Amino acid sequence: MRAALTAAARGVRGANPVVGAALLSVEGEVLHVGHHRGAGTAHAEVAVLDAAREAGTPLQDTTLLVTLEPCHHTGRTGPCTKAILRAGIGRVVHAVADTTDAARGGAAWLREHGVEVREGLLAAEALELNERWLRAQQQRRPFVSLKIAQSIDGRVAAADGTSQWITGAPARAEGHHLRTRVDAVLVGGGTLRSDDPSLTARTPEGELCTRQPLRAVMSTRPVPEAARIRGADGRFVHLDTHDPREALTRLRDRGAAHVLVEGGPTVAVAFLAADLVDELWLYQAPLLLGAGASSVAGLGIKTLAAASSWRGDPVGVPDGAVGAVGEDLRWHLRPAPS
Amino acid sequence: MRAALTAAARGVRGANPVVGAALLSVEGEVLHVGHHRGAGTAHAEVAVLDAAREAGTPLQDTTLLVTLEPCHHTGRTGPCTKAILRAGIGRVVHAVADTTDAARGGAAWLREHGVEVREGLLAAEALELNERWLRAQQQRRPFVSLKIAQSIDGRVAAADGTSQWITGAPARAEGHHLRTRVDAVLVGGGTLRSDDPSLTARTPEGELCTRQPLRAVMSTRPVPEAARIRGADGRFVHLDTHDPREALTRLRDRGAAHVLVEGGPTVAVAFLAADLVDELWLYQAPLLLGAGASSVAGLGIKTLAAASSWRGDPVGVPDGAVGAVGEDLRWHLRPAPS
Repeated sequence: MRAALTAAARGVRGANPVVGAALLSVEGEVLHVGHHRGAGTAHAEVAVLDAAREAGTPLQDTTLLVTLEPCHHTGRTGPCTKAILRAGIGRVVHAVADTTDAARGGAAWLREHGVEVREGLLAAEALELNERWLRAQQQRRPFVSLKIAQSIDGRVAAADGTSQWITGAPARAEGHHLRTRVDAVLVGGGTLRSDDPSLTARTPEGELCTRQPLRAVMSTRPVPEAARIRGADGRFVHLDTHDPREALTRLRDRGAAHVLVEGGPTVAVAFLAADLVDELWLYQAPLLLGAGASSVAGLGIKTLAAASSWRGDPVGVPDGAVGAVGEDLRWHLRPAPS
Repeated sequence: MRAALTAAARGVRGANPVVGAALLSVEGEVLHVGHHRGAGTAHAEVAVLDAAREAGTPLQDTTLLVTLEPCHHTGRTGPCTKAILRAGIGRVVHAVADTTDAARGGAAWLREHGVEVREGLLAAEALELNERWLRAQQQRRPFVSLKIAQSIDGRVAAADGTSQWITGAPARAEGHHLRTRVDAVLVGGGTLRSDDPSLTARTPEGELCTRQPLRAVMSTRPVPEAARIRGADGRFVHLDTHDPREALTRLRDRGAAHVLVEGGPTVAVAFLAADLVDELWLYQAPLLLGAGASSVAGLGIKTLAAASSWRGDPVGVPDGAVGAVGEDLRWHLRPAPS
């Protein structure tokens, strides 16, 4: 299961949880590992079975270890339960149960079909990997990523409001890649008026990426007809509310399972104060401004002991929670377990 | 010279510059490298000659490459020029000349004594390593390090002023180690009143380290008799000025060649605005505060294009400019070359 957990952390969290799987020989040797690479791609179980098939590894007497209960559900991919049965796997061990309405029931179905199933190995670690993802599911809302691009001293704009571009080209390219991974990108009215962003996902050469997120603005004020965010592809959403829960409900109704909040500070604080941020992508440029809007202002925290606490999160990052991106730094964080 | 430059970057900058040296065979092969490990320890030239002696490497026909002109000066260690001559080295190549009053003239002295000396190989890179150190020397002032410990959103204290401790134990231990490397630690009156710091260098177990810096407060207000910073060892300095240049002059007169400014924001800004910060040690804790004092406030920068620009600096850090320290991150920066 340790190998499966390590494999899981190579995946990316978002619409789907991170999941890893390992195939064990009867002697307990790890034959193959696999992980889920994000929404729309093969689940971890299928990935590891594919690896075994490709290598010609016989599957009889092997045990499949997986960090999350195999799904019994046809979404963008088929149910893992049937793939496991088809492959002739006789024994499955999963770390934690899948409690989501859509995918639950995989273990019971496998047992009915003669597969031996055990649960609970390294459950705490597996749960921690997807704690916030499971919470988002329980709250029937999309998984929320917050991206902040700030100076050394935590400013997202200079005194005169200029904010483009604080970070360098490599960090901005990562931001565009993140947009291709999510279902919706959300900004507030302040960002709309100051930056007039298009919110499209673009390559470093400025070409539109194939997969484009919904482009949402959360503002009770009208959105100018000429605003770039409107685009011409019908993927623009005006959320005329200040309530982040309401905004997420409306985006879920548009099919969004993963929302990226890109600012500004007012919108960031609305989501943070409601404990609706599941991960934080912090990009910091080697600049000092000494004035201008702080990235996060007005959380209602009065004393240090009450600070909102986070943890560096290496999941989905090639080189660990903290890394250099061009001249900038990237810190990937998740809320500290409560 | 490339090997010498790489070796130099393993050193630490402070009272002394970082310097690396390499010994080349007549075939141009790198036989040994050495670097200077900080004030009071062997210079790079002596380190590489010691390494050669220990390995029994014959020195005839070798060339000594060094990133800075060999010193001709007896400070805490003897002059490198004499050590080179004594070792029988016939050829020296240095990247940049030493222009400091105390140590200059090494190349001329070596030539007078029959050693062939060349200058200028990879000079730009060698200069960049010590650009700010050389500037401090030209300005006849100590080298200045600024340490900031802040939250994700750039706050050094919560709304109620609480600031101890923002960072975790491993980052604080690094801070104490930094104090042992400097000649003076400086804070402002605000930090004195809010934290009553002792400013001593202590081990993680709370024991006083052998080497203690001067403890300076920069404030025009009186320092309470009971303030911890006073201590009982005569190493307390009250700088009753708001002028950072004046403060540095007075610390230099007390023998300080390396000053660590530990805050708070007012003192940090005074040094930053005067372009008197030669390196920045940024420690950032995985906390959001949303209110409270920003680490840097009031630099007089109005627009993004005028931001004070820095560069990640891997010199003196084992794992690169950006790294994790416990749950916190460390970013070592130097001012971008102007």
